[in-house]
Amino acid sequence: MKNLLGIVRGRRSIRRFKPDPVPEEDLVEILEAATWAPSAGNAQPWRFIVVRDPGLKRGLVAAALGQDFVAEAPVVIVVCADLERARRAYGDRGVGLYCIQDTAAATQNMLLVAHAKGLGTCWVGAFSEEDVRKTLSLPAGLRPVALVPLGYPAQEPRPRPRRPLDDVVEYR
Amino acid sequence: MKNLLGIVRGRRSIRRFKPDPVPEEDLVEILEAATWAPSAGNAQPWRFIVVRDPGLKRGLVAAALGQDFVAEAPVVIVVCADLERARRAYGDRGVGLYCIQDTAAATQNMLLVAHAKGLGTCWVGAFSEEDVRKTLSLPAGLRPVALVPLGYPAQEPRPRPRRPLDDVVEYR
Repeated sequence: MKNLLGIVRGRRSIRRFKPDPVPEEDLVEILEAATWAPSAGNAQPWRFIVVRDPGLKRGLVAAALGQDFVAEAPVVIVVCADLERARRAYGDRGVGLYCIQDTAAATQNMLLVAHAKGLGTCWVGAFSEEDVRKTLSLPAGLRPVALVPLGYPAQEPRPRPRRPLDDVVEYR
Repeated sequence: MKNLLGIVRGRRSIRRFKPDPVPEEDLVEILEAATWAPSAGNAQPWRFIVVRDPGLKRGLVAAALGQDFVAEAPVVIVVCADLERARRAYGDRGVGLYCIQDTAAATQNMLLVAHAKGLGTCWVGAFSEEDVRKTLSLPAGLRPVALVPLGYPAQEPRPRPRRPLDDVVEYR
């Protein structure tokens, strides 16, 4: 395995996928990695909906403003924040901040572990939450915060440019 | 290096630190890892303030409701969301969701790379944003979203329990 910084730097947003299925044991490890993210007060305010049904995937594409590649992936993981769990633990700050951060940390773990296994992902945030909710019949207490298509990459995108450290870091 | 899932599972929240300084090259790699997080539209709406000044660290402790261990670490990285950059790119969804997720993904990268290097961190979310802002004289466009004390761990906490996969995953 490359060192961790190599994995972090090598991950790309993948928007073309091969039809090959995701090995079950890889999927489980990716989901397990999600659950090892830190969370405020260890509340673990998350739920992961693994979508493989073609009709539901088409519904997710429609919810995601027609981003077809979402359904091209054999698996789409819909990351949801558990708002009730978040509210119970930390009230408004739990709902508005912590559960967004906790699910994002879980998502990043998934992206990295998938990449380390040769799988591709894309963190899709542009979608109608209401339409995802309807497609999956989610209860009001679950807020979909990310769609993560997952599969073997059919493209090798070049890295997107990064702002240099001098622009984004200051020392005090 | 352990495999990536081993690193993800092995990371702990560290709340006791040795006084030994963080090697400069490790700090730079940790910050670089942050900048390789994905972000909506590659907007990179983040800023990282590396605090080593003892007086400022005491200010951060006060802002963080007296969590003394924050100042025990030789370095505290204050992760900020760049609200103006987020708003320019995506309006309200950028400010309320994407920039929180993007900075959280960046933070998780830092936690993992630090752990892989034998360094300890804690994702601190319980603080007064206003007090952090005053301590560091942050402009209104920067929202502090996490404090990350960083240093060599002086404790080896056991893993916190995780909800089993069956409780947090469903298949469709």
